[in-house]
Amino acid sequence: MKFTVEIDVMPLKEILDPQGKAVKLGLGHLGIENVQEVRIGRHITMTMQAKDEKEARATVEKACEKLLSNVIMETYTYTIKEQKTVGRK
Amino acid sequence: MKFTVEIDVMPLKEILDPQGKAVKLGLGHLGIENVQEVRIGRHITMTMQAKDEKEARATVEKACEKLLSNVIMETYTYTIKEQKTVGRK
Repeated sequence: MKFTVEIDVMPLKEILDPQGKAVKLGLGHLGIENVQEVRIGRHITMTMQAKDEKEARATVEKACEKLLSNVIMETYTYTIKEQKTVGRK
Repeated sequence: MKFTVEIDVMPLKEILDPQGKAVKLGLGHLGIENVQEVRIGRHITMTMQAKDEKEARATVEKACEKLLSNVIMETYTYTIKEQKTVGRK
């Protein structure tokens, strides 16, 4: 089975996000003053083969823990969707 | 009204994504061989005040076009959700 995975890696709430602060400042320079908080992280999309969703989930967890996020400073969320092949078995 | 906005900025499909390629290689070193494609972009969360969803949407579009994405190389998608205050008017 083929899966599409969408992962968001974000700085923890307790941790300062200078990139977000810079963007908020930049928005102010554009005349956008109604934004309160900006936080910036990474968005990762993947396609993968796995025998079922459980295996896909295990792979994603491993990838997030070991490579994609720094668990001390970041948190990750993900969604896994099966890619359906339309019109043939 | 208060809104939470989630924005994904991703490199266009036609454009090489060296960061994604590097991550795919890194996954291989971890023994994860079942991933086909990896693409990496930015995930931005914002909270904002606006009088209605239309105004919020206009602000987000302007922020994406002028600051958050480079429209020549990147594409953006976003979702806007109203923050409900529970238990008081």
